[in-house]
Amino acid sequence: MRVGVIGLGSMGMGAALSLLRAGLQVTGCDPRAAARDEFIAAGGAAVAKASDLPTGMEALVVLVVNAAQTEAAVFGAEGAAPRMAKGGVIISSATMAPDAARALAAKADAAGLLYLDAPVSGGAIKARAGEMTVMGAGSEAAFAKAAPVLDAIATKVWRLGAEIGIGATVKVVHQLLAGVHIAAAAEAMALGIRAGADPQALYDVVTSAAGNSWMFENRMARVLMGDDAPRSAVDIFVKDLGLVNDMARGLNFPVPLAAQAQQLFTAARAMGQGGADDGFVIRVWQALTGIDLPGDEKRG
Amino acid sequence: MRVGVIGLGSMGMGAALSLLRAGLQVTGCDPRAAARDEFIAAGGAAVAKASDLPTGMEALVVLVVNAAQTEAAVFGAEGAAPRMAKGGVIISSATMAPDAARALAAKADAAGLLYLDAPVSGGAIKARAGEMTVMGAGSEAAFAKAAPVLDAIATKVWRLGAEIGIGATVKVVHQLLAGVHIAAAAEAMALGIRAGADPQALYDVVTSAAGNSWMFENRMARVLMGDDAPRSAVDIFVKDLGLVNDMARGLNFPVPLAAQAQQLFTAARAMGQGGADDGFVIRVWQALTGIDLPGDEKRG
Repeated sequence: MRVGVIGLGSMGMGAALSLLRAGLQVTGCDPRAAARDEFIAAGGAAVAKASDLPTGMEALVVLVVNAAQTEAAVFGAEGAAPRMAKGGVIISSATMAPDAARALAAKADAAGLLYLDAPVSGGAIKARAGEMTVMGAGSEAAFAKAAPVLDAIATKVWRLGAEIGIGATVKVVHQLLAGVHIAAAAEAMALGIRAGADPQALYDVVTSAAGNSWMFENRMARVLMGDDAPRSAVDIFVKDLGLVNDMARGLNFPVPLAAQAQQLFTAARAMGQGGADDGFVIRVWQALTGIDLPGDEKRG
Repeated sequence: MRVGVIGLGSMGMGAALSLLRAGLQVTGCDPRAAARDEFIAAGGAAVAKASDLPTGMEALVVLVVNAAQTEAAVFGAEGAAPRMAKGGVIISSATMAPDAARALAAKADAAGLLYLDAPVSGGAIKARAGEMTVMGAGSEAAFAKAAPVLDAIATKVWRLGAEIGIGATVKVVHQLLAGVHIAAAAEAMALGIRAGADPQALYDVVTSAAGNSWMFENRMARVLMGDDAPRSAVDIFVKDLGLVNDMARGLNFPVPLAAQAQQLFTAARAMGQGGADDGFVIRVWQALTGIDLPGDEKRG
């Protein structure tokens, strides 16, 4: 089976390597030479432009940043759509608004292609291991066509319905929780530090109690180590909480916590911290209050 | 060892029953006859007023609602302090401000009593099983004196330091996370419902992904069942997020997410939902937007 993967970032590279391991014929596409070289070294093929992907692809995994990049990479003047076999499936995995997913699916349909609304989660390590989670929506035919690809890249494929947009919806709602939890983790840790709690003791108590979240446990561990290398950056949550707020506004629906959390990530970005690991939104409180962060001490 | 337990609510009753099982000589104290009767039926002794507790108590567990009730029950005109043995220990477990804990400890010291700043978590079921978590601070002498009691009521006793107030601080910070997570869970579930996601599918996806929190998993399960019987009520988080905001203001520290979450619980209370299980803060979004909740259908 001939498969293309557009976007060899942390998630896309993981998916492409997993597909290679599963024995599929994979070509990756990324404008960055370093990413292409890494994939070629692992035994794959790689191109810089989607219009250079091989012809006759039966599946295309799109793991770029947003809906606009997805549209350009697939349906733009130098897009991948003309390189796909008739009846091939687009597995569209960027986080995007449900309306954007529906618009892309309509274009796929007009081009004689199947479309899977298939955002993913799991992080870079799980992506490399072929253990992503897919929040999927689409027709039986699209799921069937995509099955060898999904089997290779994911251990859990949610089938949320036939209606395009419901995968995107669930992902956006998921990002509301993820973003609010990261910001709340930072707010709590910062307050605890100011109030005189030992940061590690606070972490140990919270992670063993009902106040815990997946994000508190994961992201505050990095804050305690002072490790701000971005596994997922502040900028991602400026974007994703933007999607949450846009979707909610479109539905006339109030989301006060998501709105507040977006302001906090925006403040971190304004400080020049957009590229830091997202838990370092805690630097907003540091800038306002002058607290010492444990990592700052360790960095000396 | 003669022990008193003031407050036979869900946590206090659990502690009192655990102490009884451990073979200690326990007298419970609660103004509500039903609570006293339940404890007497289980083999304990019970009184309505703290001043009627037996003399010579070596330990007193105080599991009432707040600092004011703790002060009245121990040091008020009809308080328990005069019934305690010299050198006995007050195990003060209500959630309260660190300043309030320090003031109570000073009164204990003046009365020749030891004091443990010892908020608890775990919920009613764990309390009954003797499996509470204690966030403890106090002197070596206070921990030593309290040891048989702590062994009976808790599986995890954090020793956060000798300084009174640090247990209260960690508990208040924990409640920031707990309260924000419940409100975020409600906001996300409500948005998902309005956007057309199946509530159970959304729950299943989130609880298996990085957007999960202990509170989302626990409280939204009850929302999906339409079970609003209070294990912990909306009113508790109006109070506890009030403590968070008071403590933060006292430290000149901004807590925008906790402030917003408190407004949401306050809104639920304003609607007459103060006695509902705290996850039913989701009724704020229902009131504003008219969404159907799964439980409402089932109550039909």
